[in-house]
Amino acid sequence: MKDLSSAQNPLIKLVRSLDDRKGRRESGLFVAEGAKVVATARDQGWAPHALLIDQAAADRPILASLARWAAAAGAEVAAVSTPLMERLVAKDNPQAVLGVFHQQTAEPAVVQPTPGAVWVVLEEVRDPGNLGTIVRTVDAAGASGVILVGTTCDPFSTDAVRATMGSLFAVPVVRIGLEAALALTTSWPGLVVASHLQAAVDFRTVDYTPPTLLLMGREGPGLSDTLAATAGVRVRIPMAGGADSLNLAIASALMIYEARRARL
Amino acid sequence: MKDLSSAQNPLIKLVRSLDDRKGRRESGLFVAEGAKVVATARDQGWAPHALLIDQAAADRPILASLARWAAAAGAEVAAVSTPLMERLVAKDNPQAVLGVFHQQTAEPAVVQPTPGAVWVVLEEVRDPGNLGTIVRTVDAAGASGVILVGTTCDPFSTDAVRATMGSLFAVPVVRIGLEAALALTTSWPGLVVASHLQAAVDFRTVDYTPPTLLLMGREGPGLSDTLAATAGVRVRIPMAGGADSLNLAIASALMIYEARRARL
Repeated sequence: MKDLSSAQNPLIKLVRSLDDRKGRRESGLFVAEGAKVVATARDQGWAPHALLIDQAAADRPILASLARWAAAAGAEVAAVSTPLMERLVAKDNPQAVLGVFHQQTAEPAVVQPTPGAVWVVLEEVRDPGNLGTIVRTVDAAGASGVILVGTTCDPFSTDAVRATMGSLFAVPVVRIGLEAALALTTSWPGLVVASHLQAAVDFRTVDYTPPTLLLMGREGPGLSDTLAATAGVRVRIPMAGGADSLNLAIASALMIYEARRARL
Repeated sequence: MKDLSSAQNPLIKLVRSLDDRKGRRESGLFVAEGAKVVATARDQGWAPHALLIDQAAADRPILASLARWAAAAGAEVAAVSTPLMERLVAKDNPQAVLGVFHQQTAEPAVVQPTPGAVWVVLEEVRDPGNLGTIVRTVDAAGASGVILVGTTCDPFSTDAVRATMGSLFAVPVVRIGLEAALALTTSWPGLVVASHLQAAVDFRTVDYTPPTLLLMGREGPGLSDTLAATAGVRVRIPMAGGADSLNLAIASALMIYEARRARL
């Protein structure tokens, strides 16, 4: 294991470049922090590109084990001085290990109307925390995966990856354009449910037995009329009094747990 | 209306000081951004300390109306140059108006076991985005309010206020210590439900008809044993496969909507 203490080291510079979308696009890599999260990546069969471990914690058994796994997988493994590590990881919850991975989304062909399937279709989601939290909720609820439609925030941004708490490595994330999304929703043999503030149907009255697509729109404007029009049913989440909206990740979670209610 | 374009103006310096907990503690003030949010404050009877409006947008009817309201309430009202305004508000969603308000929490005496009451008791919540989102969800679901227990993040931080989307002005937020929380939960005549990862009872099997306290713990460690022990029932949210947790705001929302299910 190499010892690194210079911010000028190429590996350190690479990791820092992954804070920016440009750096992630050019390298095709992203960063995930924390022993538990990196262990999830390992358990889900992801191959690491590099692994950085805080020197001061390198003899912790879990970190030593992750270092052996990464080295065996051909990844660059480095021990990093604590001051340098602190500059690389989240300030409010600093972690002793940081993995660099190749970005990997699922092929659209994995989206199939199998029995019990619940796919969350997210159109133009903007907030990486919302996106990451939805991926985490899909994992917890045993839903099938997430389909990102159109221009969305980057699921491999550090904020999005953090919010998934490792679920990014377990949940299929598919990226498609609006045309492909329309082809999917119009040919889907099961249930297509759109969340819509102006809908009349209470989301709890729908029978989610068939394979289901849950269509959720962007924060603020919501789902495009184009995509909403292809839904078999448009539903709303009931609200009380003066409130007129829920956070997108909250609305998605309520829909996901409702669609999975009979199976959990 | 005064015209401001200097970052050295005392009002601008005050607004900037409210980015920090120290500044908020010393002044007892906080910032809320956006016409819709400030209008909610007005409609809920909050008195503004100051109102800053982007010069370039000052003739928009809603902003002119808010300026009249603030001036009538004795607040300092200022038109701010666009470049200066841009330095004061959120980068990703810049707003043309910014209100400064006096921090105001509700008295513990407002927490009463009235029919249909659902209070969310948040112990040591750390993430302002989670806290703000929970306040927003409480508002949407028509729950009673939020009780913050012990050392929590600041509900008046800019991130927390943003996440509430104005609901901070509509939802009672009470702050108490652990002793007072224990006194509340042990004397509560209704239902006291604790969310706990190791619980055996499915949260969907509970009868939430009585006035309800929902106890939610801190991100990561969860609820303290001390507080959890006072609950009449400990529940878990079912999860599938490898996932072992939900985001706190998501778990809270699922609990809140379940507790309010028969009333929405």
